[in-house]
Amino acid sequence: MRGIQAAFLGFVSMTSAAFGQDKAAIDKLNESFMAAFQKGDTAAIGQMYAEDAYLLPSGGEMVKGRAAIQAFWTKAAEGIGDFKLTTVDVKPLGNDAAREIGTFTLKTKGQPPQEVTGKYVVVWQKVGGDWRLATDIWNTDK
Amino acid sequence: MRGIQAAFLGFVSMTSAAFGQDKAAIDKLNESFMAAFQKGDTAAIGQMYAEDAYLLPSGGEMVKGRAAIQAFWTKAAEGIGDFKLTTVDVKPLGNDAAREIGTFTLKTKGQPPQEVTGKYVVVWQKVGGDWRLATDIWNTDK
Repeated sequence: MRGIQAAFLGFVSMTSAAFGQDKAAIDKLNESFMAAFQKGDTAAIGQMYAEDAYLLPSGGEMVKGRAAIQAFWTKAAEGIGDFKLTTVDVKPLGNDAAREIGTFTLKTKGQPPQEVTGKYVVVWQKVGGDWRLATDIWNTDK
Repeated sequence: MRGIQAAFLGFVSMTSAAFGQDKAAIDKLNESFMAAFQKGDTAAIGQMYAEDAYLLPSGGEMVKGRAAIQAFWTKAAEGIGDFKLTTVDVKPLGNDAAREIGTFTLKTKGQPPQEVTGKYVVVWQKVGGDWRLATDIWNTDK
């Protein structure tokens, strides 16, 4: 009985550890995303997406594929100043996918700058051992 | 070699069959969702969500849990007439999750009625053998 309990606890803590790793990996990737955005390095942002990723922008048409997504962010970055992502929840789905829910705030570059708040869902997928954004959608709170 | 090929082809066709089944199951659930919405049966809609589901409405705050999601749809249904969901892509994630991307059109009940078009992402999860909406987010195209 003790052996079974120990094995079960071992399983639970392994699962938690794997989950913690996913969460930590995704937090780090979001830091990279924000840093690249701040520098206007949309090529680096494009590389964070899976080759066949979908982007579903609020107020715009669906965008498919890494090249088109990079072009989207290049255009979008022209009008956006400060930009912050905050993860709310990460849920692992199978061994190589995870669903992240988060919130964002951004300031537009217009005069006067406007603050926009919203929320997003990203489905991350492991491609060759690296987490990449496979599906990315957001909307605004107002 | 032939044995390996046959086993591999068997694996591929099993995967495709499972995928087709997921897609068909989700199509059927979307039909149920639209039918329940048309009848104003938001209790049935609520039951389609996982107990701990997240709803991220365009233009509103995040909603968590089946009861709150049902209340959201009860309120939303007051202002919405025709409502149509069209699946664009379904991707299985592990054995008990799938990511659906789709588009929607709806007509508001105001005078004159307005047509709204948009897109959505749903993460479905199998709970006790049944597919349920676990994460549901959408936005509008304009």
